[in-house]
Amino acid sequence: MSFVINNDRRMMINAQSKGQLHRGGTIMEYKFSEKVQTLKPSAIRELFKLMVGDGIVALSGGNPAKEAFPEKEIAEITQKILTENPIAALQYSISEGYTPLREQIAEYVKTNFNIGTEEDAVLITSGAQQANDMAVKIFCDEGDAIACDETIFIGSLSAIKANNVKLVGVKGDDSGMLPEQLEEAIATNPIKAVYLIPNFSNPTGLTMPLERRKAIYEVCKKHDIIIIEDNPYGELRFRGEHVPAFKSFDDAGIVCYSGSFSKVVAPGLRVGFMIANKKIIDRGTLLKQFTDVHTNILAQMIVYEYYKNYNIKKHIAEVSAFYAKKSEYMCKLIREKLPKEIKCIEPDGGMFVWCTDTSGKIDIDELVQKLVSEKKVAIISGDVFITNNSKSHSFRLNFTVPSMEQIEYGITSIGEVLNGLYAK
Amino acid sequence: MSFVINNDRRMMINAQSKGQLHRGGTIMEYKFSEKVQTLKPSAIRELFKLMVGDGIVALSGGNPAKEAFPEKEIAEITQKILTENPIAALQYSISEGYTPLREQIAEYVKTNFNIGTEEDAVLITSGAQQANDMAVKIFCDEGDAIACDETIFIGSLSAIKANNVKLVGVKGDDSGMLPEQLEEAIATNPIKAVYLIPNFSNPTGLTMPLERRKAIYEVCKKHDIIIIEDNPYGELRFRGEHVPAFKSFDDAGIVCYSGSFSKVVAPGLRVGFMIANKKIIDRGTLLKQFTDVHTNILAQMIVYEYYKNYNIKKHIAEVSAFYAKKSEYMCKLIREKLPKEIKCIEPDGGMFVWCTDTSGKIDIDELVQKLVSEKKVAIISGDVFITNNSKSHSFRLNFTVPSMEQIEYGITSIGEVLNGLYAK
Repeated sequence: MSFVINNDRRMMINAQSKGQLHRGGTIMEYKFSEKVQTLKPSAIRELFKLMVGDGIVALSGGNPAKEAFPEKEIAEITQKILTENPIAALQYSISEGYTPLREQIAEYVKTNFNIGTEEDAVLITSGAQQANDMAVKIFCDEGDAIACDETIFIGSLSAIKANNVKLVGVKGDDSGMLPEQLEEAIATNPIKAVYLIPNFSNPTGLTMPLERRKAIYEVCKKHDIIIIEDNPYGELRFRGEHVPAFKSFDDAGIVCYSGSFSKVVAPGLRVGFMIANKKIIDRGTLLKQFTDVHTNILAQMIVYEYYKNYNIKKHIAEVSAFYAKKSEYMCKLIREKLPKEIKCIEPDGGMFVWCTDTSGKIDIDELVQKLVSEKKVAIISGDVFITNNSKSHSFRLNFTVPSMEQIEYGITSIGEVLNGLYAK
Repeated sequence: MSFVINNDRRMMINAQSKGQLHRGGTIMEYKFSEKVQTLKPSAIRELFKLMVGDGIVALSGGNPAKEAFPEKEIAEITQKILTENPIAALQYSISEGYTPLREQIAEYVKTNFNIGTEEDAVLITSGAQQANDMAVKIFCDEGDAIACDETIFIGSLSAIKANNVKLVGVKGDDSGMLPEQLEEAIATNPIKAVYLIPNFSNPTGLTMPLERRKAIYEVCKKHDIIIIEDNPYGELRFRGEHVPAFKSFDDAGIVCYSGSFSKVVAPGLRVGFMIANKKIIDRGTLLKQFTDVHTNILAQMIVYEYYKNYNIKKHIAEVSAFYAKKSEYMCKLIREKLPKEIKCIEPDGGMFVWCTDTSGKIDIDELVQKLVSEKKVAIISGDVFITNNSKSHSFRLNFTVPSMEQIEYGITSIGEVLNGLYAK
């Protein structure tokens, strides 16, 4: 039986294969590699078991809304490719990715975000997660360290650890990582790279202002430290002004930019990309070759044709407007229904609202458990996103997946359970 | 400009992105990780530049024939999926792969090849290359060693090296790796795993008989050494009897079996799988999660529907018959047109014919160069498949991609150039 967890980008519970019989020998005692030994099934896996199923209102997800997929257009495009040009879509292809897509990405990010110089190149990856993972592998040997926000996406956190690379959480404020704290971390750790989600970060929803980006950049440049700029949500802005990417002012070639089509086209296609200096992309291309040869070529052609033949700007604007409505509604309800001790960060885009119990009195695990058992509402404890083992006193809410009705029921339920907990 | 090399599973020459301008800073001196520093662009890349282009007859490839793809069926299936069930095909999915496909694979390999016990599980990977790479990562730390044939597929060889794992080439005979030689290698190296392509190996085309498999298995079992059984070509048999897989008698759970749909459905889909003990698959699933989240789900559904609704056995029989004709024709021409000093291994299946100059007098590099410049015929020097830096005195010919006419022209040309070289 398989237990599908439709939240975040990687959760699932052991699925069993049928039709297999035991042969009756003594199974070897496996000695796994050091880095694989340290991999732990995510701490929230067990929680997830309680959290997904019929009748559960999931504010715990990390998926795009199903309404956000251009499914008709993808069906049309795919039919066209597979009837007009099937061999190109089915045969082996080149490791750095489908050339028209790479050129299209280079032009798109240059025109729209001033990203890329003639020193840079594009590598197509199987999602931005692979781009991040490759950047880690390109620059870090086992035992090296990577700096990141104290509170950061669990998938990235686990990917870094899976390389036997140490994570160093750096303190921040509402504008993100603090440059002087980064300086301190660099002085005391073998830091090779800084990992950042500068736009609508997962889980906090925070966006780093330009001045802070420049300050962080200067610190990294001074110490020859790579910046892994993970930007899966950047185009899903529904309030405020665009903030230039690190990569847009990267005159020292220290930024590895990870982009994704998962949030603006469809995540199941697993198409993302890395933009970095050509020397870095050369190493990445070799790694890609030896890891999985190349990314599914049909999916690359689908993304290319979608951008070429349809109005991506309009699609993104529609998705963002759809998410804005949900985010605003969720934040309004939080202000109305949750105790005043709960402060939330209202995001300018992305997919998440981050709530913190400023009193520090609430046991978040208890909140999570009670919500599931008493209200059938799923949320994620902030503790799973913390790089050190401290307590976050926070929880993450997703607004892209639930309907408006589910958002209302969910937030109302959180309010009721919290009121009960504060009254204790 | 992009230079597509349609041979083997990963070759390409640097492709440039358009529309990017230099920003004018001083680019950082990159310090790459140790394992990435040692990655070398394949030695044959430069040769490939000469080898592909208009008018070149390529016997150098490693792709399936374009005639071997069930392109109409794939177009039909894909249309059905994307109209009837688009969200499942486009949304995030689970890391171990599409459950119906995993169950289907488990049943297929059990029924047809007696592979799998109740202790085993299936993990879907992005091609068999990823399954092999994961097996290496699961069992090897940097500095560990893997044993393989002295002459082995360059992609696997590079993948192992990219993990900073040492390759130990083990001598073999016409039945493949010699058990006593493996014993010796184990005694003198920190070998954690043995990598084998037991059926129609790339590049030699050799198949290991059952008795030899059992002898190798016993050596590995005795020393707690994992067998990475890579079987991309196994179903493409066109002569002789099926030989049971290592995995079919694996009572100690030491075999990681890598399978692929690249040669029987389509390689561009990048769908492969690993079958191994559940404890190994658990580690692999975590690695998969942190590397690229999951394999393209549309592609997994396509493979599932193809096996479910079409006659895969008939398709494989047709492809094998098509390849048999080409292989036999190539071998017949080799006997007729090449000097008697050239001995070839006539394969029972797969995609390659391996030719060796028994006199040892021919400079294979010179042969390759002359064939390109004088005859516009591309072949691959056997030297690129050698684990130590010795000379192979061999070359690899592919018969799946070229037409019968191209095979005739190619072998005739090799004969002419060889005759010239022997006459010198």
